[in-house]
Amino acid sequence: MRLAAVDIDIGTRSPTVLLNGTDAATLGVHPLDRVHIETDSGTVVGIVELSDELVAPGELAVTRRLGHVEGSVEVTPAPRPASVEFIRKKLDDDELDAEELDRIVRDVREDRLSDVELGAYVCAMYLNGASLSETMHLAESMAAVGETLTWDDEVVADKHSIGGVGGNRVTPILVSIVAAAGVTIPKTSSRAVTSAAGTADTMEVFCPVALSADEIRATVAATGGCLAWGGAVNLSPVDDKIIRAETPLSLDPHGQLVASVLSKKRSAGSTHVLVDIPCGEGAKVTNLNDARELASDFRRVGEHLGMTLDCVVTDGSAPIGRGVGPVLEARDVLSVLSGSGPGDLRRKSVRLAQVLLDCCDVTADAAAILESGEALDRFRAIVAAQGGDPEVSLSDLVPGRFERTVTARDDGVVTHVDNGLVNDVARRAGAPRATGAGLELHHRVGDAVGRGDPLYTVYAEAEGRLDEAVTVAERVEAVRIRAPDETLIERL
Amino acid sequence: MRLAAVDIDIGTRSPTVLLNGTDAATLGVHPLDRVHIETDSGTVVGIVELSDELVAPGELAVTRRLGHVEGSVEVTPAPRPASVEFIRKKLDDDELDAEELDRIVRDVREDRLSDVELGAYVCAMYLNGASLSETMHLAESMAAVGETLTWDDEVVADKHSIGGVGGNRVTPILVSIVAAAGVTIPKTSSRAVTSAAGTADTMEVFCPVALSADEIRATVAATGGCLAWGGAVNLSPVDDKIIRAETPLSLDPHGQLVASVLSKKRSAGSTHVLVDIPCGEGAKVTNLNDARELASDFRRVGEHLGMTLDCVVTDGSAPIGRGVGPVLEARDVLSVLSGSGPGDLRRKSVRLAQVLLDCCDVTADAAAILESGEALDRFRAIVAAQGGDPEVSLSDLVPGRFERTVTARDDGVVTHVDNGLVNDVARRAGAPRATGAGLELHHRVGDAVGRGDPLYTVYAEAEGRLDEAVTVAERVEAVRIRAPDETLIERL
Repeated sequence: MRLAAVDIDIGTRSPTVLLNGTDAATLGVHPLDRVHIETDSGTVVGIVELSDELVAPGELAVTRRLGHVEGSVEVTPAPRPASVEFIRKKLDDDELDAEELDRIVRDVREDRLSDVELGAYVCAMYLNGASLSETMHLAESMAAVGETLTWDDEVVADKHSIGGVGGNRVTPILVSIVAAAGVTIPKTSSRAVTSAAGTADTMEVFCPVALSADEIRATVAATGGCLAWGGAVNLSPVDDKIIRAETPLSLDPHGQLVASVLSKKRSAGSTHVLVDIPCGEGAKVTNLNDARELASDFRRVGEHLGMTLDCVVTDGSAPIGRGVGPVLEARDVLSVLSGSGPGDLRRKSVRLAQVLLDCCDVTADAAAILESGEALDRFRAIVAAQGGDPEVSLSDLVPGRFERTVTARDDGVVTHVDNGLVNDVARRAGAPRATGAGLELHHRVGDAVGRGDPLYTVYAEAEGRLDEAVTVAERVEAVRIRAPDETLIERL
Repeated sequence: MRLAAVDIDIGTRSPTVLLNGTDAATLGVHPLDRVHIETDSGTVVGIVELSDELVAPGELAVTRRLGHVEGSVEVTPAPRPASVEFIRKKLDDDELDAEELDRIVRDVREDRLSDVELGAYVCAMYLNGASLSETMHLAESMAAVGETLTWDDEVVADKHSIGGVGGNRVTPILVSIVAAAGVTIPKTSSRAVTSAAGTADTMEVFCPVALSADEIRATVAATGGCLAWGGAVNLSPVDDKIIRAETPLSLDPHGQLVASVLSKKRSAGSTHVLVDIPCGEGAKVTNLNDARELASDFRRVGEHLGMTLDCVVTDGSAPIGRGVGPVLEARDVLSVLSGSGPGDLRRKSVRLAQVLLDCCDVTADAAAILESGEALDRFRAIVAAQGGDPEVSLSDLVPGRFERTVTARDDGVVTHVDNGLVNDVARRAGAPRATGAGLELHHRVGDAVGRGDPLYTVYAEAEGRLDEAVTVAERVEAVRIRAPDETLIERL
């Protein structure tokens, strides 16, 4: 069918074209069907939506995603892309081969799938799972479509936490220790998606993190490490697009997670990788068996991709450190590097750094490197190389000026600090965008507290946000107190 | 956050708002998250998409779906709707209760779900299935949101085929017989979605079918029956929206199918319903066990909704009748009513009419009503009441003027006529939009044919479409011929 193409200013992600209902009926196409559009410069594929209001009969409205198309074009029904058939296959629990997964990854990258199809892909991976071989192929395909970094070193260390734990800013400390031990560790991290801060958000308090590949190489050449934001180097462009479809339903299929993490590690040129799997009430993985299974998948897929991989399962039942939110976490990091700071964060960082050094077959004492101040020096060097102030001190790291402290309503013992609720309060207060927003925990599980004792302080950069956060804080029990001999929670 | 609302001309289905990336980060919202928008006239909920190109910082672009919103508005992150939590629950294979299903149905009706969420709903229903009680609740909810028809008669007969069989235009014949037997049968049918013709498309060859509820009542008052298009009376407005998400992946979850069909029957005021489940190679249901299970679900959900329900499993392995496409099927219908026509269509129509009459506890002989010409008279009366020409004859029903006949390449026996391929060829020829397009089958399974004998004739209203259809026809084996004693299909 011959139609007059007109541009339409819609910021759609997928290559949408709008047809009048009459023309769609004549063509025999329905919403979300594909059409071939033949132009002078070649054939493109559009995904059909109908609009009798915006498009007159005889017209084809072409969105920007398809580039500039104008004039008379030939429009014919197109078959659905092969990747849609493969998603259908996966829904029917058939195993996909390397080529089929590769087609899906490439079509996701090029935004060739509609949201219905993307949603179905995520659901199929969630409900039917991915075999080890599927996960391997998926990781390979995802790595193949991204940018890559290459290094001359034989050992390139890396670390990843699957997340879900408040605070937990291990990475800057670990990277400083490992780099000080002489191991190359070009670490890229993510920003917060649904949490109060990602490592990249926290590091941005100290220095720029949106480094180009060249800037990463220069930083690593100068210091042996870096603490950059991965998003700027586009190591796994497909990841964000898949996360977009996972987030609305809070789906995080294991196979997709493993493939996504390891594809980025491979693209980053890493050879020795430590994966931290926090496990416990409120974490992403709640029981030890699941953690072990996930660890085994990570290890096997990692090895398939030619990496040496170690996994640790850590206590993920409560936040690690005192601060939650970029500046407050930055304070924890600098404190630990300076020889004080929260004990749990210090212990976890040293422990994980040691495991990674052992994995790299390097003889070095992580605790000694931290105690000697070598790690702090190295951290300052990295901050300087990335364009920050190497002389930064705790007094420079000032949380939001609006604060309120939540206190214990009764005498008792802290029995639980809830990752999810702590995160909610910090985000309500403005984190991660308001870098000084968040909260500081004054107690850990097991501490005895008296009625009226401070439990945590909420910080915000705007009074309205503080009020909002405190309203939430007062409604929920982010820090749970129980009388030590009390089993009755509430009498109704 | 305070933003300046501007209208944007996008024909989206869901209530999309576009935010600049900076504002989205400040609000802490991601694509497909919801925001509350407070206007002078109340609060509305928008689904977020990002566009730095189309929206400046400080602006909020509001699509038409949300109505006209202008001026300064307060925008805050909103929780996801409860129905999204319920879809998540169904993905985890938890049973949904009546209230939860009702929320999903209402949110689908109001377009409050994103395509990712709709896709997930369909996948969850497909992969985890629906229990009998879920199907019942779903049917009730779907019926509750649609228009309803009410009748004074104690017995209101109805019929539904789950489809998938070429031709198979039983309904006009059956309705004519049943109405002639004195049973009220206000039949509404669908148009083709992916087939070459729906009953509504075929009936439109004879008379208007887009009747209002009042016109349906008038037709039924005059003739005891009608043959209208269901889409015009909006009996199940949720159905189309769900089908939109099912079609791209060819998903047709049984629970959804049963709920959808029976909600429409209930809304139509039917008391006695016959469901035809064609079964066989190439039909929607391929084995007898599945057909029986589906029949049992139909029966139980139907009874729960207060209807008397009978199911028949029929041979769905090949098209029924000779014609495929609106005019060609209309010829079959008129031929059978006139006492000749394809034997399989005549036998199936009489048989099903008799089952429905028995189900209604009416003593009448379907075959006799057809043979006596009473059914034809009744059909002409319905056509007249709907505004068509009651004197219509076969010579008025002229297929497309471009035709070509596909012949047998070898001597042999017809072993298979493929529903899907016949459908493809007819659609390529232009059906259902080009009403004269389609094909006419010259042989049925079991017929002996000689090399060069005509197998079927393709009709089109435009030469280009004929060529396209014939190209497909020559590539596939829509009518399969085998030498009677040959088991070898091809020597490679």
